[in-house]
Amino acid sequence: MEKKKILILNGPNLNLLGRREPGIYGTGTMDGCLEALRRRYPDVEIDYYQSNAEGSLIDRLQAAATDGTDGVAFNAGAYTHTSVALLDAIRSVPVPVVEVHISNVHSREAFRRQSMIAPACVGVVCGFGLDSYRLAVEGLLCAAAGRD
Amino acid sequence: MEKKKILILNGPNLNLLGRREPGIYGTGTMDGCLEALRRRYPDVEIDYYQSNAEGSLIDRLQAAATDGTDGVAFNAGAYTHTSVALLDAIRSVPVPVVEVHISNVHSREAFRRQSMIAPACVGVVCGFGLDSYRLAVEGLLCAAAGRD
Amino acid sequence: MEKKKILILNGPNLNLLGRREPGIYGTGTMDGCLEALRRRYPDVEIDYYQSNAEGSLIDRLQAAATDGTDGVAFNAGAYTHTSVALLDAIRSVPVPVVEVHISNVHSREAFRRQSMIAPACVGVVCGFGLDSYRLAVEGLLCAAAGRD
Amino acid sequence: MEKKKILILNGPNLNLLGRREPGIYGTGTMDGCLEALRRRYPDVEIDYYQSNAEGSLIDRLQAAATDGTDGVAFNAGAYTHTSVALLDAIRSVPVPVVEVHISNVHSREAFRRQSMIAPACVGVVCGFGLDSYRLAVEGLLCAAAGRD
Amino acid sequence: MEKKKILILNGPNLNLLGRREPGIYGTGTMDGCLEALRRRYPDVEIDYYQSNAEGSLIDRLQAAATDGTDGVAFNAGAYTHTSVALLDAIRSVPVPVVEVHISNVHSREAFRRQSMIAPACVGVVCGFGLDSYRLAVEGLLCAAAGRD
Amino acid sequence: MEKKKILILNGPNLNLLGRREPGIYGTGTMDGCLEALRRRYPDVEIDYYQSNAEGSLIDRLQAAATDGTDGVAFNAGAYTHTSVALLDAIRSVPVPVVEVHISNVHSREAFRRQSMIAPACVGVVCGFGLDSYRLAVEGLLCAAAGRD
Amino acid sequence: MEKKKILILNGPNLNLLGRREPGIYGTGTMDGCLEALRRRYPDVEIDYYQSNAEGSLIDRLQAAATDGTDGVAFNAGAYTHTSVALLDAIRSVPVPVVEVHISNVHSREAFRRQSMIAPACVGVVCGFGLDSYRLAVEGLLCAAAGRD
Amino acid sequence: MEKKKILILNGPNLNLLGRREPGIYGTGTMDGCLEALRRRYPDVEIDYYQSNAEGSLIDRLQAAATDGTDGVAFNAGAYTHTSVALLDAIRSVPVPVVEVHISNVHSREAFRRQSMIAPACVGVVCGFGLDSYRLAVEGLLCAAAGRD
Amino acid sequence: MEKKKILILNGPNLNLLGRREPGIYGTGTMDGCLEALRRRYPDVEIDYYQSNAEGSLIDRLQAAATDGTDGVAFNAGAYTHTSVALLDAIRSVPVPVVEVHISNVHSREAFRRQSMIAPACVGVVCGFGLDSYRLAVEGLLCAAAGRD
Amino acid sequence: MEKKKILILNGPNLNLLGRREPGIYGTGTMDGCLEALRRRYPDVEIDYYQSNAEGSLIDRLQAAATDGTDGVAFNAGAYTHTSVALLDAIRSVPVPVVEVHISNVHSREAFRRQSMIAPACVGVVCGFGLDSYRLAVEGLLCAAAGRD
Amino acid sequence: MEKKKILILNGPNLNLLGRREPGIYGTGTMDGCLEALRRRYPDVEIDYYQSNAEGSLIDRLQAAATDGTDGVAFNAGAYTHTSVALLDAIRSVPVPVVEVHISNVHSREAFRRQSMIAPACVGVVCGFGLDSYRLAVEGLLCAAAGRD
Amino acid sequence: MEKKKILILNGPNLNLLGRREPGIYGTGTMDGCLEALRRRYPDVEIDYYQSNAEGSLIDRLQAAATDGTDGVAFNAGAYTHTSVALLDAIRSVPVPVVEVHISNVHSREAFRRQSMIAPACVGVVCGFGLDSYRLAVEGLLCAAAGRD
Repeated sequence: MEKKKILILNGPNLNLLGRREPGIYGTGTMDGCLEALRRRYPDVEIDYYQSNAEGSLIDRLQAAATDGTDGVAFNAGAYTHTSVALLDAIRSVPVPVVEVHISNVHSREAFRRQSMIAPACVGVVCGFGLDSYRLAVEGLLCAAAGRD
Repeated sequence: MEKKKILILNGPNLNLLGRREPGIYGTGTMDGCLEALRRRYPDVEIDYYQSNAEGSLIDRLQAAATDGTDGVAFNAGAYTHTSVALLDAIRSVPVPVVEVHISNVHSREAFRRQSMIAPACVGVVCGFGLDSYRLAVEGLLCAAAGRD
Repeated sequence: MEKKKILILNGPNLNLLGRREPGIYGTGTMDGCLEALRRRYPDVEIDYYQSNAEGSLIDRLQAAATDGTDGVAFNAGAYTHTSVALLDAIRSVPVPVVEVHISNVHSREAFRRQSMIAPACVGVVCGFGLDSYRLAVEGLLCAAAGRD
Repeated sequence: MEKKKILILNGPNLNLLGRREPGIYGTGTMDGCLEALRRRYPDVEIDYYQSNAEGSLIDRLQAAATDGTDGVAFNAGAYTHTSVALLDAIRSVPVPVVEVHISNVHSREAFRRQSMIAPACVGVVCGFGLDSYRLAVEGLLCAAAGRD
Repeated sequence: MEKKKILILNGPNLNLLGRREPGIYGTGTMDGCLEALRRRYPDVEIDYYQSNAEGSLIDRLQAAATDGTDGVAFNAGAYTHTSVALLDAIRSVPVPVVEVHISNVHSREAFRRQSMIAPACVGVVCGFGLDSYRLAVEGLLCAAAGRD
Repeated sequence: MEKKKILILNGPNLNLLGRREPGIYGTGTMDGCLEALRRRYPDVEIDYYQSNAEGSLIDRLQAAATDGTDGVAFNAGAYTHTSVALLDAIRSVPVPVVEVHISNVHSREAFRRQSMIAPACVGVVCGFGLDSYRLAVEGLLCAAAGRD
Repeated sequence: MEKKKILILNGPNLNLLGRREPGIYGTGTMDGCLEALRRRYPDVEIDYYQSNAEGSLIDRLQAAATDGTDGVAFNAGAYTHTSVALLDAIRSVPVPVVEVHISNVHSREAFRRQSMIAPACVGVVCGFGLDSYRLAVEGLLCAAAGRD
Repeated sequence: MEKKKILILNGPNLNLLGRREPGIYGTGTMDGCLEALRRRYPDVEIDYYQSNAEGSLIDRLQAAATDGTDGVAFNAGAYTHTSVALLDAIRSVPVPVVEVHISNVHSREAFRRQSMIAPACVGVVCGFGLDSYRLAVEGLLCAAAGRD
Repeated sequence: MEKKKILILNGPNLNLLGRREPGIYGTGTMDGCLEALRRRYPDVEIDYYQSNAEGSLIDRLQAAATDGTDGVAFNAGAYTHTSVALLDAIRSVPVPVVEVHISNVHSREAFRRQSMIAPACVGVVCGFGLDSYRLAVEGLLCAAAGRD
Repeated sequence: MEKKKILILNGPNLNLLGRREPGIYGTGTMDGCLEALRRRYPDVEIDYYQSNAEGSLIDRLQAAATDGTDGVAFNAGAYTHTSVALLDAIRSVPVPVVEVHISNVHSREAFRRQSMIAPACVGVVCGFGLDSYRLAVEGLLCAAAGRD
Repeated sequence: MEKKKILILNGPNLNLLGRREPGIYGTGTMDGCLEALRRRYPDVEIDYYQSNAEGSLIDRLQAAATDGTDGVAFNAGAYTHTSVALLDAIRSVPVPVVEVHISNVHSREAFRRQSMIAPACVGVVCGFGLDSYRLAVEGLLCAAAGRD
Repeated sequence: MEKKKILILNGPNLNLLGRREPGIYGTGTMDGCLEALRRRYPDVEIDYYQSNAEGSLIDRLQAAATDGTDGVAFNAGAYTHTSVALLDAIRSVPVPVVEVHISNVHSREAFRRQSMIAPACVGVVCGFGLDSYRLAVEGLLCAAAGRD
């Protein structure tokens, strides 16, 4: 069986993780999270990309269509709620994408309860802190296993 | 370390799983799903309850507060979108609850994109078929581990 | 030709028929209505069930899928306007369901003009008093005849 | 007992019945439907009128007030959802009017779920194909019988 | 003068009173509240019923129409905001009903500011803690006195 | 124990009580209501003020903060539904305020079902005719007793 | 001074005046109204036109631009609330138009409180019964006098 | 026949007439308007009152109920669009009130197209400049003549 | 290659082109426009029809289905924004229809930005003055060429 | 150069500044604020007026048009969000007005984020505590300097 | 006559043309489209730019103001529906811009039927596949010819 | 006392200041504005950054958290009304931010009256032309002084 390749994709302000509003996002860092994921899934290649720019996130999603990526765990941050362009980008690539959120977006402001991109995703995982990324990877691997 | 106890709670029409609209819900059955969960987590007690009645679901949630349950993976089905009473019930019990959906509710009718109960839950998992239950159990165990 | 079997299914407060708000619902009783139906259609088995509980109505609809019922004339009463769970239940059973109302719901409060369940039904009959049930049975028999 | 007189009134595009979108409206024709009605109710005079013009439908409804018509089975087609003028016209004539639809308008586009004219009608019948007209005639005769 | 009979009727999650969210609902219990009411009004029979199920509340309201009940102090809990069926049930029984809330529902979530059932009630009392029940009984006795 | 002091505060058009729309507001007068209150609560000082002007009502509420008033039973009439300024005024004074209505505002026009001021009040009493004032005074005395 | 020419223009269902819903529209007839107008204003030519068809009303409005009409008193009936085409027609002709209603449309159904055509009119007169036409003619003559 | 008495009542900012936004309100003054009215109707007593304060307008309307006023031509200015209290005041007095506007409020900002008070008025006159007052007086005299 | 046949279809008020609101619609006439089109496309038969009546436009669209028309450039004027009947008519005929507007409807009133008929059209051309008709013809010929 | 004259105008409840909800409005008083302004701008005459009554604020704004005022720093308090009459008043006077708020109204309740009066103002300053008044005066002087 | 210069400007995801959702966008490529345009219009310089980033599209539009561009055919993709910044950018440059879409955006999701940028454009062309670009160029040249 | 450091941050299209829509934005340039600020506040370091890209603005705001910036005067241009990502960015940095606008956004299009970012800002200054920046700097220095 070929090695799977999963992209963790983070949107705006998520580079501040561990420093930004710790009451909401916790004190764990993305580095620690990625290290734990790679240790837990030694047979999976875990890629990572973060950008504050909507256009760069679209570029990276498009690249995933041709670089052998098997699934994307995508935390689009604030763009989740406003970006039609990311919705189109997800629809444009044949790779399954899971929407991820660290906090439970449903217990915050009303505008965070609406996702523009969810209809184009395989599913959604939110509210488990940094473990949300692990659950999303788990789910992508299940789906991939089901397809093999 | 004490054995953990997780309740899988299913709402209206989910007793038909495997027979109802297989294009949306798949052909797997809840029995198979529970058996797989118990095999995967031998150290966890997996309880199960299903009812078509809103009041019975409230009763079961309240019971979970005093029978040693450590977490609830709750697929409230159609009541997800209309029930203020279940929202109140979840708030009334100190046990963490995860909202679960088999299908990606965001790619169906508009009224399925609104959840009344999500603000009272720890988090949400949707779109992974019957694996959604496993991811929810995973997430509840992470959270419980973090609390120990 | 096999004998047809039709279920008349009544929701909340319809057990009070004949006593409740006669200005709106008339003074006829459900017993008289059923007797008349059975006399008019001697070759059709007319079943009847009423409950004030949403969950019990779902249970009864599901049972209709396996007890040989050929059609359901369903007056869901107030649940017509609020219940996503009944919508799902109707979609879950392969038996044709007709939405019935005694009064013309369109000439009453605004919230009675919206039906949650109509999209899953074969059709709607409303405004003919207790004759609405007869017209619904008529319509179900037509449809069944067309399918035979 | 005097012979009853019922008007079948059809609005825009219904002259195309049998040719227009047969997936929705079926392949039966209005001629066949009228012939069947007249055979089934030999003691009832069945009139018929169709127009694509809102003003002409208003004219015909007004005429029904003085030509001895006992009831109108009115399929206003697309005007159902937009015409305040037809609502007024129905209110202006003392003849009972039943709203009729061939298809189940509730399982189509959202704007077809709102009826401007229903509050002025006796009742609604929809979703039974051309049988909807027969059920409406049935209902009008019941009502007329109740008044005699 | 005949002894009056008042029903205290409680909806979903109110069986947890004293244990549930004490910051909102206080620490008093319903037992203490009922005992105090019976001591204060020795000439009034105070009945009590609680259920988490909408259908059971409808059943109990209907029963009040024939068991000599003179008034109902009804805390419908979360069903206050969603139940058309309870609205119909209140309209179906000739007994005066007062809507009761322990907390001031107007200073909580927006959806708690809308009551489906208030238009069918005599009046509303909210925000006085468990004393809200006493004020509602007071108000029902005034009204009853006015009718005698 | 010091004598309590309660202010009955009435807004626009309530000076016409007894003459204005008696079908809605009854034929009792405010004078009779005040006299009855003073007789029933001899140990409570009952103050009264009415004005048609929003600004004067704000002035009077502010004065209550410094003249020893222990509670306000406030029927803001039509300003209930439109005045942000009264909401602010109630928030500005440390005296508990109860919203009062003579009629059941929930069974009248839709715009009377929304209260701007309720979120700043202790609670609401409506629908008991002039007895609504007595229930509000009762409720204020309970609350005051609880604070002593 | 040249003789003025005023067009009274009536929309759908107004040909039934005197017979239709007399509780709302009264028992006076348009003939009587026109006769009275001509007697009162012997120096004004009073033209009259009625149609149930939107297109015919547009035709007549356009004709008014070239036949020497000095003003139009226009009761568009139900089209008042829905017709963008009449709005455009009024804007297309240089003759001043006054919107007229016999009843007070503001105390009827909500949808009658919105006028599509009012922004293009000189003004509105409503609620004075058939006298509304006279007040509109009065207003048009004032305006015309001001222009002379 | 007794002399009639009509009150012209003006709301906020209308004391600036002739100076304020002449492009919208013209350059005529209220003094000139009143003088012309009194000359035209020598047998009618024309009273006048203006205030910028909502409460004072309510006071004046209430006074009209007992000082022999036969009708009120009321230009409530900006309060037209926001005041429930003026709506109640008009309902509280048995004197007929006509809503008046100088400009065509329908061709200005959207919020000026909604009137809170119109449902309680006899009718509306708007868009004829200062002549709107004369048309309203005319209309009130017609109505009064009809009542005599 | 057979000669193509294109219908230019104009809705209400477009017979006034050149005279109506020249600031918006320009001073060119439809005659000039048609002449230019026929000169430019000598091999295309350019038909023209205009009506103010919704029903006549429906009739003409239906006729196009059987008279060999290859495409329709349809400026539905005000009906664009309100007519469900035209939407249905376009869907009923197999001829491609392009929605045309002379002005940029998006820079005018808000209600002109919503088109009822666009979903049934091949495309939309707006904002190029009378050249919009030419671009629509261009587009229809492209589409037709693609189909040949 | 002539001495400038600036009016500080305060609306409802702002007379309580320093005592009212200090968590939002701070503990500074308006007296201290005015004194500091007069010391900082010795060449500017700083007038002050406060009222809880909407009508009195309109009166004061109108007076500013004729008493030589060069600019108004207006904190309309709660009337900011509801008063069309103040909007009209600001438009009626030729003096520039700046909308002022002590707190950041955008981080409070949703209804405080809408200003009725802002479109008629020169600009807005909010969120700087009592310094907001100074910034508004600064801004008015800049504007005045630009006009000189 | 100087050579014209037209910019074809494409927004997010349009670099995938030919590969992305061919059911909606067809299989033609942008390269082929540009080549055909340059062949058809040898006297026009056809520039091309695509970016997934909103800011880069603004930069390019601004550059068009100073590099001699005579018109822009702008397919803003998903940004069409959300970007106020692009609306401002179009308004900031004196070059005429035409909004272009390949598919008929009106027959897709509701949010694609609203364009933020259309009010600032000369016109709109949509639904003709890649021919939409040609029609837009046609339209820009017409307009330019008119200006020369 | 340490030297303060203030960042002036400008969003999309503000690089065109002085050239773009001078009727709205004036003819002053940002260079002139910055020079004047530095002259007026010699003891304050005034930094400046402009970008048309949302992501770059987020990057710059994040940098301000660690480069010693004491406050940000942020004119987010069109992103003000749409960007949740900038709202999050402002919340992520501990530096106070003031929302700035050159024009009075409240007297322009409706969508410019809603700010996404204002709830996370210290306050708002708008409508004073380029002086808005100076007032914002003033306000930031006041706030900083208060904190020292």
